[in-house]
Amino acid sequence: MAYHVAPLQRLVEQFERLPGIGSKTAQRLAYFVLNMSEERAKEFSDAILQAHKTIRRCEICCNFSDKEKCPICRDEARDKSVICVVETPRDAIAIEGTGEYKGTYHVLHGVISPLSGIGPDQLCIKELLSRLNNGEVSEVIMATNPTVEGEATAMYLSRLLKPLGIRITRLAYGIPVGGDLEYADDVTLARALEGRSEL
Amino acid sequence: MAYHVAPLQRLVEQFERLPGIGSKTAQRLAYFVLNMSEERAKEFSDAILQAHKTIRRCEICCNFSDKEKCPICRDEARDKSVICVVETPRDAIAIEGTGEYKGTYHVLHGVISPLSGIGPDQLCIKELLSRLNNGEVSEVIMATNPTVEGEATAMYLSRLLKPLGIRITRLAYGIPVGGDLEYADDVTLARALEGRSEL
Repeated sequence: MAYHVAPLQRLVEQFERLPGIGSKTAQRLAYFVLNMSEERAKEFSDAILQAHKTIRRCEICCNFSDKEKCPICRDEARDKSVICVVETPRDAIAIEGTGEYKGTYHVLHGVISPLSGIGPDQLCIKELLSRLNNGEVSEVIMATNPTVEGEATAMYLSRLLKPLGIRITRLAYGIPVGGDLEYADDVTLARALEGRSEL
Repeated sequence: MAYHVAPLQRLVEQFERLPGIGSKTAQRLAYFVLNMSEERAKEFSDAILQAHKTIRRCEICCNFSDKEKCPICRDEARDKSVICVVETPRDAIAIEGTGEYKGTYHVLHGVISPLSGIGPDQLCIKELLSRLNNGEVSEVIMATNPTVEGEATAMYLSRLLKPLGIRITRLAYGIPVGGDLEYADDVTLARALEGRSEL
């Protein structure tokens, strides 16, 4: 990396900090930015600052929002009686992508992970509990990731919520659509068998 | 992509404009930036603007520089009698990476490409010619890419420079070190045979 001039080197280092960006890609991106028009570079730079300044957490579901309430919580057409609990805002976007879900979300912003020192207090769990007090909610869907931590968090929450008399459900496990049985792992196949349905 | 709040959406779009960054990666990067500290985000944003503001072309070799002359052209220890002609600043960095080259560079900032409407006038060719007038330069190494355009540009330049009585050379073609003969393409193998050397 010798002979990168200083401002360019700084830009390369900034890109290297991003996840999944190695030093070659960081270089490529930095040069690309350098070849942008002045105006475009300003747009890029502003987008970073603006996103940081204006985005906060929705006071209801803890998802990212530019106002006090996020677009989904503000939306009158969404079914407020169903809450889908996800780990991150990106998980909510993935579920939105299906176009099948009309309820609301609750973003935990993480999972319980004793190894990383993350307990229930660091997650948006009390915000979830406060949404369940008014009796409007009839179902909570656990959509944490199918990992050990995700499972543990779902179990923890379901034990916490069961006494409130709310229906707690979980996303189905099974073989992915378009997948190949041959390459499915044993645990997934076992779950798919377990959860088989009538044709 | 529904329900991305506007400032976040703008940031995702900025990342999507970068080369080799798809919509999923752009999303991941945007969320990463959002989770940065305010200070880090400011650093990132500033690095983009600063790189754009302070970087210009070296008045000698046309490489990126933060001063009138780039670090290589300023360096007394570099051999000013050899010029290595490359397409882009990144190519110069690749050659620097070998640690074997002690001469200077000349960055064309592109290749002759009639299909994209790029002729010799759009490249830094007159800057190269003006370096050859003082009789200091004894060799010009063509290190354009081994593509049709790169070859054509090297040919064009060598015809232009030959009358000046300067030695014009070209990087060797051959099989890449650590490569596998079995997977080398025919043209490369033919060139490797052609350029074989005594053991």
